[in-house]
Parts: sequence; C-alpha cells; structure tokens
Amino acid sequence: MKYINQTELDNMTPRYRAHVINSLSGFKSANLIGTRNKENIYNLAIFSSVVHMGASPALVGFITRPNSVVRHTVENILKTKEFTINQVNDNFWQAAHQTSARYDTGVCEFKQTGLTPLIIDGVDAPFVKESLLKYALKLKEVIPIQLNDTSLVIGEITDIICNKEAIKSDGYIDIESLNTVSISGLDSYHTSRRLSRISYAKPDSSPFNLSLDGEQPD
Amino acid sequence: MKYINQTELDNMTPRYRAHVINSLSGFKSANLIGTRNKENIYNLAIFSSVVHMGASPALVGFITRPNSVVRHTVENILKTKEFTINQVNDNFWQAAHQTSARYDTGVCEFKQTGLTPLIIDGVDAPFVKESLLKYALKLKEVIPIQLNDTSLVIGEITDIICNKEAIKSDGYIDIESLNTVSISGLDSYHTSRRLSRISYAKPDSSPFNLSLDGEQPD
Repeated sequence: MKYINQTELDNMTPRYRAHVINSLSGFKSANLIGTRNKENIYNLAIFSSVVHMGASPALVGFITRPNSVVRHTVENILKTKEFTINQVNDNFWQAAHQTSARYDTGVCEFKQTGLTPLIIDGVDAPFVKESLLKYALKLKEVIPIQLNDTSLVIGEITDIICNKEAIKSDGYIDIESLNTVSISGLDSYHTSRRLSRISYAKPDSSPFNLSLDGEQPD
Repeated sequence: MKYINQTELDNMTPRYRAHVINSLSGFKSANLIGTRNKENIYNLAIFSSVVHMGASPALVGFITRPNSVVRHTVENILKTKEFTINQVNDNFWQAAHQTSARYDTGVCEFKQTGLTPLIIDGVDAPFVKESLLKYALKLKEVIPIQLNDTSLVIGEITDIICNKEAIKSDGYIDIESLNTVSISGLDSYHTSRRLSRISYAKPDSSPFNLSLDGEQPD
C-alpha cells in the first residue's frame, strides 16, 4: 500500500492532484442536466456530483462551481427554477462527455452532440430522449459553500420518465438493465455488474441476498 | 416508457417511494466512514452519499440525517473533528452493508461485522484494513439543510492510503482494479466494467479514448 501524506498532496501538480482527489470519492453517477434559457435555447451539461438528498420530500442535489464550464446550467436554473436530470447510458456516453466542452453562450449542446431534446407538457426544461431514466425538478434551494466557492443546488422531483420493464415490484429501478454508466476520476466511464440486492441489515442476524424484485429466494 | 407524475408520486407507499427515489440519482459510491468516540470505541457506518467537492483544497462531503442509524458517526465527528472514508470492495461488501444495522451505542461495528480497524500515526479515527483505497479527513464544516433536516458534512483530506499498482502515471486511480463497488437504490451492489477513459472535451473536436494511463494510443 502507498501512503500519501499532506506534504506529498500539497506538492502534486494541479492536474495530477485533480486526478487523485477525483478518484477518492468512488464511483460517481453520470447525469446530464437539461435547462432552457430565456431565449429558449436548450442547454445540456454532464455532472458527476448528483446526490440523493431524501425521498420525502423527493429531493436531489448537485455540486456546482459558478465560474466553470457549467455556468450556463446554473444561470438557467436560477432564472427558470426548473431543470431535468437524465441518466447517461452506454449508448451515448461519449456524446454526454462532449457536453463538457466549453461552448460559447447561445450554442446548444443538443445540436453539437447529436442528442435529442424531448419536451413534455408542464415542463419547460428539455429531457434527453436517449436517456432511459430521467426526471424533472423544481429548484428548491441553492446553498453556497464558502470553503471553496461552490454551491449545492437542490431540486424537488415533479415528473419521472422511466423504461417500464426496469421498475421492479417493490419500486426498485434496475438501472443496470438500462446500462446506466458511472464515472471514476475525471474521465473514466463504466457499466456495472450486479453482485446482488441484499436484505435490510438487523443487529441480530446476517443479511441475505434478495431477488431482483426484492424477495427472499425460497 | 412509463410516465410518473406528482400525484402518482404522492400516492406511493413510503417504502415503494423510497426505492423509486433512491434509484434516480444513478450509481452511488459505497464507502465506510470510520470514527472514534470519546470512550475510544470505534464506529463504522456505510454511506452512499459521499461526494467530491473540490480538488484544491481537497474536500469531500456526505449527506447525513441527524436522527438516523448513523447518528453515532455524526456525533463522533462533531466531537473529535476527524473521520476516515474507506472504499468498499467486493471482498467485504456484505460486511459493509451490515454496518447499517441499528446497533446500540457503545457497540463496535468492527467487532460485529468482522472488519479490521487500522490505526496510523497522527490519525485517531480508524481505517478499515480490508479497504484498498482510504483516506483521513479533518472536519471543515457542517452545513444544515433545512428543507429536510439533513446536513452536508465536509472534510479536508489529510492522508491517503492506496494500493500502489492502482495509481496510474497521471494520478488517475484505477478503482475498478480495486474491485470498488457501487450501490443502486437502497440495497443493490455492483462491480464495474470500464468502457474507457476519454479525452478532455473541446468544442471543435470529438473526444477520443485514452489508455488506462491517460495517454492517446498510437
């Protein structure tokens, strides 16, 4: 095992350090966030920091940096109070990655990457048609993080669009069957291979494997 | 595709709804957080909400609920200002899951699950010996999220312990080679299969695949 202390961390070049630190948090979800600006131009950007905040109310958040390449996403959300989150799958992961290029204001990432906007009644922000699990959110709060000038943007889920077959009988959604991808570090993409679903842990017994539908096998 | 609106969401049973909403954010990292209390009892709890906050300073955060089963983790961090984060791999994922059982105060999850505490000079919180990528953090800030009575706990990385071979020449850590697992929903665990590393996206060109060391193949 290699041991890296604070001094060695401080002495790393910024790029090397970015690769190391971005690898530490483990596999990260790969999601495209869709927004619309006041001129009705759609914007799309990939995020690896989407995080579950709670089921009731149904809240999802993500971390953002105001001056980064994703500044349009945040500006649009602040103005329109609305966005979509679209899981990336292995059919369009390269196009999803390409949304992180620093396009000029007014350039539509859908057009640049070949992804297809999907609009439904009651939601102004665009979904990604190619995504097999996606949802719309209303902005609830932007929490500034002064430590490093980032923000936690939190939305409440209003509408979900999901491949029917992936929704199991207890509500679990089999995102592996959707070929949803994850990210490690800054630039590595991965599909998944299930070990198992596993029973709710209790102090006096060992957990056991569950079926995909959440049932204890006979 | 199935379309679920707000009314259908509101009418779901709490358990069904928890499964659905927990599936939406995509693959989540699986990490054990190690702490020590004032009576020198070690505590260990699994978290699926660890999120990269920034590389410089090197900040990692996680979402927690004060009255949940992980209350001991948060109490200990507030008292000792220190914790470790340990990536879960496929050799001990069931034991890691078992740490989520509601053990009484004073019960040590290491003893209950068979995982091994590892202590190094200068860090009071215990690492998980079985983890192949782990790091210590000093508490920097606890940000309350009033929307749903949760908190974002942020630490700064001070020490990293990692399998040597997994660290590539540009700093990328090949966590797939460590068999690091991810979580989907509330209870499904997954290993990964790499699609590729991919080049930094630029507006005027398409991204291309990189080698594991981050180099463009000939």
